[in-house]
Amino acid sequence: MNLFEEGLKFNLSELVELLIQVGLKVLVLLIGYAIVKPLGRKAIETAINRLSTQRKLSEGRNKTLQKLSVNIFSYALIFILVMMLFSAVGIEIGPLLAGAGIVGLAIGFGAQGLVSDIVTGFFILLERQVEVDDYVTAGGYDGIVEEVGIRTTRIRSFDGTLNFIPNRNISGVANHSRGNMRALVDIGIGYDENIDEAMAVLQKVALDFQQDERFKEGPDVLGVQSLGSSDVVIRILGKTENMEQWAVERDLRKAMKEALDAAGIEIPFPHQVYVHKNEE
Amino acid sequence: MNLFEEGLKFNLSELVELLIQVGLKVLVLLIGYAIVKPLGRKAIETAINRLSTQRKLSEGRNKTLQKLSVNIFSYALIFILVMMLFSAVGIEIGPLLAGAGIVGLAIGFGAQGLVSDIVTGFFILLERQVEVDDYVTAGGYDGIVEEVGIRTTRIRSFDGTLNFIPNRNISGVANHSRGNMRALVDIGIGYDENIDEAMAVLQKVALDFQQDERFKEGPDVLGVQSLGSSDVVIRILGKTENMEQWAVERDLRKAMKEALDAAGIEIPFPHQVYVHKNEE
Amino acid sequence: MNLFEEGLKFNLSELVELLIQVGLKVLVLLIGYAIVKPLGRKAIETAINRLSTQRKLSEGRNKTLQKLSVNIFSYALIFILVMMLFSAVGIEIGPLLAGAGIVGLAIGFGAQGLVSDIVTGFFILLERQVEVDDYVTAGGYDGIVEEVGIRTTRIRSFDGTLNFIPNRNISGVANHSRGNMRALVDIGIGYDENIDEAMAVLQKVALDFQQDERFKEGPDVLGVQSLGSSDVVIRILGKTENMEQWAVERDLRKAMKEALDAAGIEIPFPHQVYVHKNEE
Amino acid sequence: MNLFEEGLKFNLSELVELLIQVGLKVLVLLIGYAIVKPLGRKAIETAINRLSTQRKLSEGRNKTLQKLSVNIFSYALIFILVMMLFSAVGIEIGPLLAGAGIVGLAIGFGAQGLVSDIVTGFFILLERQVEVDDYVTAGGYDGIVEEVGIRTTRIRSFDGTLNFIPNRNISGVANHSRGNMRALVDIGIGYDENIDEAMAVLQKVALDFQQDERFKEGPDVLGVQSLGSSDVVIRILGKTENMEQWAVERDLRKAMKEALDAAGIEIPFPHQVYVHKNEE
Amino acid sequence: MNLFEEGLKFNLSELVELLIQVGLKVLVLLIGYAIVKPLGRKAIETAINRLSTQRKLSEGRNKTLQKLSVNIFSYALIFILVMMLFSAVGIEIGPLLAGAGIVGLAIGFGAQGLVSDIVTGFFILLERQVEVDDYVTAGGYDGIVEEVGIRTTRIRSFDGTLNFIPNRNISGVANHSRGNMRALVDIGIGYDENIDEAMAVLQKVALDFQQDERFKEGPDVLGVQSLGSSDVVIRILGKTENMEQWAVERDLRKAMKEALDAAGIEIPFPHQVYVHKNEE
Amino acid sequence: MNLFEEGLKFNLSELVELLIQVGLKVLVLLIGYAIVKPLGRKAIETAINRLSTQRKLSEGRNKTLQKLSVNIFSYALIFILVMMLFSAVGIEIGPLLAGAGIVGLAIGFGAQGLVSDIVTGFFILLERQVEVDDYVTAGGYDGIVEEVGIRTTRIRSFDGTLNFIPNRNISGVANHSRGNMRALVDIGIGYDENIDEAMAVLQKVALDFQQDERFKEGPDVLGVQSLGSSDVVIRILGKTENMEQWAVERDLRKAMKEALDAAGIEIPFPHQVYVHKNEE
Amino acid sequence: MNLFEEGLKFNLSELVELLIQVGLKVLVLLIGYAIVKPLGRKAIETAINRLSTQRKLSEGRNKTLQKLSVNIFSYALIFILVMMLFSAVGIEIGPLLAGAGIVGLAIGFGAQGLVSDIVTGFFILLERQVEVDDYVTAGGYDGIVEEVGIRTTRIRSFDGTLNFIPNRNISGVANHSRGNMRALVDIGIGYDENIDEAMAVLQKVALDFQQDERFKEGPDVLGVQSLGSSDVVIRILGKTENMEQWAVERDLRKAMKEALDAAGIEIPFPHQVYVHKNEE
Repeated sequence: MNLFEEGLKFNLSELVELLIQVGLKVLVLLIGYAIVKPLGRKAIETAINRLSTQRKLSEGRNKTLQKLSVNIFSYALIFILVMMLFSAVGIEIGPLLAGAGIVGLAIGFGAQGLVSDIVTGFFILLERQVEVDDYVTAGGYDGIVEEVGIRTTRIRSFDGTLNFIPNRNISGVANHSRGNMRALVDIGIGYDENIDEAMAVLQKVALDFQQDERFKEGPDVLGVQSLGSSDVVIRILGKTENMEQWAVERDLRKAMKEALDAAGIEIPFPHQVYVHKNEE
Repeated sequence: MNLFEEGLKFNLSELVELLIQVGLKVLVLLIGYAIVKPLGRKAIETAINRLSTQRKLSEGRNKTLQKLSVNIFSYALIFILVMMLFSAVGIEIGPLLAGAGIVGLAIGFGAQGLVSDIVTGFFILLERQVEVDDYVTAGGYDGIVEEVGIRTTRIRSFDGTLNFIPNRNISGVANHSRGNMRALVDIGIGYDENIDEAMAVLQKVALDFQQDERFKEGPDVLGVQSLGSSDVVIRILGKTENMEQWAVERDLRKAMKEALDAAGIEIPFPHQVYVHKNEE
Repeated sequence: MNLFEEGLKFNLSELVELLIQVGLKVLVLLIGYAIVKPLGRKAIETAINRLSTQRKLSEGRNKTLQKLSVNIFSYALIFILVMMLFSAVGIEIGPLLAGAGIVGLAIGFGAQGLVSDIVTGFFILLERQVEVDDYVTAGGYDGIVEEVGIRTTRIRSFDGTLNFIPNRNISGVANHSRGNMRALVDIGIGYDENIDEAMAVLQKVALDFQQDERFKEGPDVLGVQSLGSSDVVIRILGKTENMEQWAVERDLRKAMKEALDAAGIEIPFPHQVYVHKNEE
Repeated sequence: MNLFEEGLKFNLSELVELLIQVGLKVLVLLIGYAIVKPLGRKAIETAINRLSTQRKLSEGRNKTLQKLSVNIFSYALIFILVMMLFSAVGIEIGPLLAGAGIVGLAIGFGAQGLVSDIVTGFFILLERQVEVDDYVTAGGYDGIVEEVGIRTTRIRSFDGTLNFIPNRNISGVANHSRGNMRALVDIGIGYDENIDEAMAVLQKVALDFQQDERFKEGPDVLGVQSLGSSDVVIRILGKTENMEQWAVERDLRKAMKEALDAAGIEIPFPHQVYVHKNEE
Repeated sequence: MNLFEEGLKFNLSELVELLIQVGLKVLVLLIGYAIVKPLGRKAIETAINRLSTQRKLSEGRNKTLQKLSVNIFSYALIFILVMMLFSAVGIEIGPLLAGAGIVGLAIGFGAQGLVSDIVTGFFILLERQVEVDDYVTAGGYDGIVEEVGIRTTRIRSFDGTLNFIPNRNISGVANHSRGNMRALVDIGIGYDENIDEAMAVLQKVALDFQQDERFKEGPDVLGVQSLGSSDVVIRILGKTENMEQWAVERDLRKAMKEALDAAGIEIPFPHQVYVHKNEE
Repeated sequence: MNLFEEGLKFNLSELVELLIQVGLKVLVLLIGYAIVKPLGRKAIETAINRLSTQRKLSEGRNKTLQKLSVNIFSYALIFILVMMLFSAVGIEIGPLLAGAGIVGLAIGFGAQGLVSDIVTGFFILLERQVEVDDYVTAGGYDGIVEEVGIRTTRIRSFDGTLNFIPNRNISGVANHSRGNMRALVDIGIGYDENIDEAMAVLQKVALDFQQDERFKEGPDVLGVQSLGSSDVVIRILGKTENMEQWAVERDLRKAMKEALDAAGIEIPFPHQVYVHKNEE
Repeated sequence: MNLFEEGLKFNLSELVELLIQVGLKVLVLLIGYAIVKPLGRKAIETAINRLSTQRKLSEGRNKTLQKLSVNIFSYALIFILVMMLFSAVGIEIGPLLAGAGIVGLAIGFGAQGLVSDIVTGFFILLERQVEVDDYVTAGGYDGIVEEVGIRTTRIRSFDGTLNFIPNRNISGVANHSRGNMRALVDIGIGYDENIDEAMAVLQKVALDFQQDERFKEGPDVLGVQSLGSSDVVIRILGKTENMEQWAVERDLRKAMKEALDAAGIEIPFPHQVYVHKNEE
């Protein structure tokens, strides 16, 4: 196991043999390294290129993912090479490994969050779950994405706050910028009103809005959504262009309120029946 | 343990013997690999095929599961083969293993979520818990499934949001697209009304709806569900075609409200008894 | 430790001896395997049979549990046999074991949920905590059990949804189908009413219901459950056949409301005392 | 390390010696086992007997705990014996151990819940935290204990549901069947009433109830518990026999309400002062 | 490594030498044990004695802690001694250790709660966080401590329930029996009342109570705690003897209500301003 | 493995050879150390310098990060060097390593929080998530940052409290000091008012405020945000300078209330419809 | 590996050599220990002294931290020394280490809370997060700190309760005793009042309070904080001496209420608009 001592039992000629052996081992290792490194690199790059084309990733994102993967691969390879070289020249690497192991474990306990950030970040990028300028809800924050990093994602809230979210906290992304959104208005009419009449009035407003090019589908009056404690709630629903849903809902609400007023249909305040009784 | 040095104690003829031995070991390993790989592959494919037929999985899903399982098996097999070859030619694999182990552990801490995603995803696919276009509630999100991946499931919410849910977060799936759904309407009548009369009126509406082909069973009036603070609540229940429950409930509510109005039965506002007392 | 090299130090006759030794070891191992396998299998089957009879498990469930247990035992035994054979013929199994270990650990981190599902599932089956068609609450879901699997349990909710629950999430089962259920009605009377009189009226209704064969015990009037802000709450309690509790409660509520109306006892609306004061 | 090969270097007479050695080792191990097993068994039984007497456990529970402990001890002992026998006859047990270790670890990850159930169950039995027929709150469930098992506890809820609770979920037991219970009634009187007078009326009722044999202590009027928004709340408190607290509270409430009515003391409805103002 | 075989290479005289060596090792180990055990025991007892005097622990608690510590120390020592003896007489202890290790780990996963209970219990006893008869809030339970064990603490709730709390669940103890408690009464007066006058009336009552020996400090009127929606809230605060705070607060409330009544200062009901408007 | 004993088999001349070997090993290790240390240091400093320039970190923060990284690197290096020296001079380092390992693991379990603090702190500093004097919400606290440490962050709350937050608890930072903030005022008008008129009045106020240099964008009237139970809610939105949003909102509210008063548009109190009914 | 047996192969003179070797090793280890111990101790003390001066820790706290650190260092050192001595005299320490390891791991699982307490306690002391007599909120408790220990912190709540909080539960400290505190009073005026006039009246009161030496800054009237459902809320804010904020707020509230009364400005009760409608 220890080649210096053993070597000393023989004479110089044997020492030479020994040196040749060590040299050969080192050579083999270096050649192995020289072969494995570019091969592995190529393999990783090809794999990520293939994924990129499949998922139509942008060139920039493709490069980011390649660089990250190649870096991790290189560090692991160099670590192993050094270990094997040490071992080949007869230096015991036990202590070194153990040292690295203890430090690694100690950090591992604390830094698992970091690795978790990177793994999650890798997939957020790869699966294009969020893009810069998407409006998303993730990790309890809500806003426009300003940057998607490998460790943190930055989201600008509606009120102007900039949120830094470690990727590991993103346990599910609700992306509000992928396709048309629904606009939904619930409006309550009095219990004494004729439901058919009210629905006709509202449907007429809805028909006007169907011309509005912000609407992709509808809006339409669905029917009696609930029998509230003081009103009969009628639901109107439509599909709008992305990010237009709020403006459209505001316009719908105003138009419907004015149409019901014009038709003399009541939007009731809360009602209560009072039963009078004198102090006993 | 180290065959180079030992070999140098003998002359060339012994070296040859040694080479033959090493060659033999390598050969045995390669033959073993060549035998085990296709056998294992076959075994996995057969097992998954059998499961697929049992559970009536689609051809596409069957292929996905086979590919995933065979991939994992291949990587593990190659890893072991390489280790054993190194060991057979006399290169110490301790460092390599330790290096792989430390990297593996470090990643394992952070990436257990990833493995967990894949294991859960495997069973979601295998047990057909969700299919594309099912309406489900899973991981706190609610909507139509757009894609069931091995790592993430994509659900389109009602408001148009696209949700990306890591499979590990799916700790239970409520699939609303497997069979008929129940339509349930609770309607409150005044405390002064005759309950039998009201139930008769409502049952008549229910009978009309039983002709409606969206109903698979009922609807029927069940009875007095609760004695509320201002009303006696009567429950109507039926079974409808899948996804028709909301439309049907809206129609039921409208019809029942109109029937009670026609019969002069009050749907009461909240009541309160006022006891008058003058300022002391 | 490595028998090829050592063997080469001696001549052929010694090689033969060596081969005999290896052969003997292999033989011993195979004989051991041939003995242990059926014995272990028998032992497991007997143990589960005994448990089945004790707990009156159905034949089908008995078979399921036996198959699962024997499978796990067989895989473990084969794994050990292969390892020992490799070792006996002088192939170093360190790398193989380490490879299996690392893969195992990596998966273990992510797949502990899966093992946990199976262990929990095993006991749910063995202890008959749920049976198909039981009405249960488990893992946050509520409904009729459609299938109890070794990994997932399927529960059909009242509204028609089919829920897939990984067994590990079932941290306690509330089984509503094991024995008679209680029907409980709370009814509030006015503060001005005579409590004894009201209780007599209600007890009379209760006596009528005692003839109802759906009732196994009672119902009976218990007394004044609470002094509410506007009413004196009286509780009626009884035991009914399983799954009949809701229908019975609905009938009780209707009958008691009508009895109190007939006796002229008020079920009061919320009260409030108004103290008048003029704007200062 | 491997005794077969070494043995072949010598002649038959040495083989005999070797066999004797192995035989001796096996003998020593078997003798050791034969000594340790009954001793350990005895020690465990004595220990549990002593605990049983100390804690006055029933004979049946004593036997259950002894059987469980002796079983675990026996399995561990046999496992170790087998390992040492294999080792003594020169079969490498590394693979076997490693196999057992990997399987053990894999299961350990998933089955820690099971061990946790058993450990908790052991102490629930030993410390007599719950007995069959106790009324307890544990693990979020509430009811009468039907069975205390080593893995699960079964509790029958008030409404008739049978709950299966894995012992590990019992992170604290509230046992309502250990000693007398308190009956507590809060009753509100009007702000205009004389507090002393009201307390005297209530105390008179309390005195009557002190004769009731269900009361072990009290009941007594404590005083003004709070100044509510519409009433002055007076508290009455007493100690009753176990499980009689609800019946006693119902009787107390009825009697006190009737006593206050008789004395003309108001139990007020919620009050509100109305300040009138005309529309500006 | 294996002394039997090696020994057989030499003749009897060498065997004798060997036996002497083994005997010597065993002797050394036993002597070491005989020295270390009482020393360690002494050291532990002294350490705990010192801690006891420092923290004024009762004699009984001192003994409990010593016994526990010495027991753990003895078991660990004997385990190590046995291992070393086996090793000294040449029996491979690898299997034994591995067996113990696997069992230990398996149990460790499940039983960490138990160790956690004991460690926490040790410090609860040592730091005198709770004593029998203290009134405490711990682990979500609230009541009088009946027993502080090394694994569970028993707390008797106010309503008579006996709660068993595993010590690990006690993540913080609120001990209500360590020193004087504060009595606090908030009383609301009308917005029209003169605040200075009301505070004078209340302070007079407070002065009377300062004679009450249950009060250690105060009570005093602090001032206007808040401007409520219908009343101006005035706070009175004092320090009372332990466990007298509730009785004192009840007496304070009654006296203050009567004093305000006597002074003609209003404790107002909730107010609301009514703006009249006729149906449009 | 142990060079002292082996050495004694030979004579002095061999001892000398041995010493030379040991000396050589030590020399090689020291030279290796002397080369690796400055190289590693340089590499770390360069890496952090590059990061600093990229992210425009201040010189002080740059130094802090360099010092931290170099320290960790140095300690790990020295630990490994010492281990390898011990091993080179023939002292078994197993015990030392094992000792360090056990202590390390024991601490690791408890101290993972500490490492986690440092890793998170490192990235908070590096990514400039918070700066001193930023107004942030992090870890459940809210206020002005007073110090960003490698282990704790200090935040001064609005009420004057100084909060110490371990960095690991900062699972996401909401930084309110990065860019302009939005000012948002919702104002409710009566159902009888003309919405267009009210929006015109409010837009006029908004136009005045657009001159206010604290506004960076807007404010503008958006439209009907919701149809409340008693009022029609209109939303006004604008972008202000950082930290000016509250003052601006206060001014906007006052101006808009006064403008609506001036225009005779009602900001309604809660409405309720009273249906009169006489005691039955 | 085992020096006794090897030694017996040689004669006495070799034994002497052996003894000398062992003696030398022991000597080297003891000398190493004698050198390392005071050096390490010195290093730790210097490090903590430096930290103490930097952070201005009191002398007592300095000593506490030094003692703790030196103790941990000493125990680790002695453990390692003993291990190396055993190894030097040829006693296998494997069993001992394994024994310690298993016990250590078993305890580690359960006792990680304890280590976590100490690590957190160390930093609470070192960073002076809390001092005795500070008013803090930590771990869900709120009060005056009575003792900061290395394992538990004791906090006296306002009501007199003494809380024992394990340091690990202190996941963030809100220290209310570090600097001036803010006093904040919100006061609502009627919708009909002139806002400017009301703010002038309140500002006048604020000006009077600015003379009050308990105020360090302000108080000042900020403006219209919100438009409530019945009142316009005006906010007054100032900075006061630590712990004076509550008294100051009470005085401010009283003065402002009286000033508004004097100026005839209404603090309104909740308003509601009543729309009358007759029973249909």
